[in-house]
Amino acid sequence: MTGWLTVVGLGPGAASLITPEVSMALAEATDLVGYGPYVARIPSRVGLTRHASDNRVELQRARQALDMAAAGRRVVVVSSGDPGVFAMASAIFEALEGAPQHHALNVRVLPGITAMLAAAARAGAPLGHDFCAINLSDNLKPWSLVERRLRLAAEADFAMALYNPRSASRPDQFGRALDVLREACDPSRLIVFARAISTADERIETTTLLEARPEMADMRTVVLVGSSLTRRVGRHVYTPRRAV
Amino acid sequence: MTGWLTVVGLGPGAASLITPEVSMALAEATDLVGYGPYVARIPSRVGLTRHASDNRVELQRARQALDMAAAGRRVVVVSSGDPGVFAMASAIFEALEGAPQHHALNVRVLPGITAMLAAAARAGAPLGHDFCAINLSDNLKPWSLVERRLRLAAEADFAMALYNPRSASRPDQFGRALDVLREACDPSRLIVFARAISTADERIETTTLLEARPEMADMRTVVLVGSSLTRRVGRHVYTPRRAV
Repeated sequence: MTGWLTVVGLGPGAASLITPEVSMALAEATDLVGYGPYVARIPSRVGLTRHASDNRVELQRARQALDMAAAGRRVVVVSSGDPGVFAMASAIFEALEGAPQHHALNVRVLPGITAMLAAAARAGAPLGHDFCAINLSDNLKPWSLVERRLRLAAEADFAMALYNPRSASRPDQFGRALDVLREACDPSRLIVFARAISTADERIETTTLLEARPEMADMRTVVLVGSSLTRRVGRHVYTPRRAV
Repeated sequence: MTGWLTVVGLGPGAASLITPEVSMALAEATDLVGYGPYVARIPSRVGLTRHASDNRVELQRARQALDMAAAGRRVVVVSSGDPGVFAMASAIFEALEGAPQHHALNVRVLPGITAMLAAAARAGAPLGHDFCAINLSDNLKPWSLVERRLRLAAEADFAMALYNPRSASRPDQFGRALDVLREACDPSRLIVFARAISTADERIETTTLLEARPEMADMRTVVLVGSSLTRRVGRHVYTPRRAV
């Protein structure tokens, strides 16, 4: 048996947002590797072994997946959203970099619906013009770099998607991020808090930078910040295609 | 019959990248509206009327779709990729803004796999850290704004996805964009040219800023520019999660 490793994105939560390509890979897998809650989204079946792990052990999980594929298993590594956006794909290549004996392995990445696109669709089209995606977690980069990128993104007048805005271990940083935005943007700037989109816990709230409070975000929220042109129409929020 | 309008993303090309949610909306539609080549991707069936139009008539197409939904039709507007990323969703809300009589209509957006995520997955994980998406077309914004955003994105050390890099009517601007990047980035900066990903015409090429030539891109290409940390491992390109 020739093993392979495929990193897949399960989208934001609903089964109807999983691509057929990903479903086919899952149907062919012998082993499922990932963070517990993501592995739990895939139904059990005979012939499929589950390897669920804790958060923050991405590299260890990636090495385990590579080793299993090298041993002939058909391994699917599951991510929420898209595997290439603040998720498992980079960890897999990092592990591969440290394991030259695995460089000939069949490693593939299958895209998924990332949180910002699901959130934007629910809100309207707030990312309808140039935009950026910034991970607010400083687990793997200095906080000063986060602030610097926020300032430059505001200067470029990008719409922004802010991933991992706030967690129990980082309760205060999102407030600092809002402060940086307040220095650079008008108080009327629109902000969308999109939580657990497409799941039973979905909640979406549009407010302004003036009214935004850190408590509006938690670890299941993606925050969309409009550009200077983003506006409301009816219950929707959108950024026009035209910027003049 | 209660009409509705749903804007859907068909992904980059392959049917296996269309979400089940979008397939369900297509199955319920009475009318299909969009740019000819995208409408042509959906099989004909009894009860489905096709309204294919030229490129660059987005607003007119959007108004037509709203009017049909208001008249009780079940209208699906098709975009390539994700409808909220340089596609039809913003045009729909722009048309809605000018038509207050339609504000109570049931208008929804269903996300899709946008070109940059399909391209990134094929290449490895070049967007695995903070990144931005910039539309290089100056049809709806001044070219000076494109250059300014490229400079600020380089200063922020974002990875970048460049949409619509080059077309018959804009043959020279992508070369100017590369010049802007050359002023700001090291010549060894990795660049991925991803053309028509997931179709029969798929072609992917990784090179450096030094070796990049405007002719490597056309209107079916999305260009991914790495951050300063983006590197190769085996035949893959990835951006590490850690930035220190």
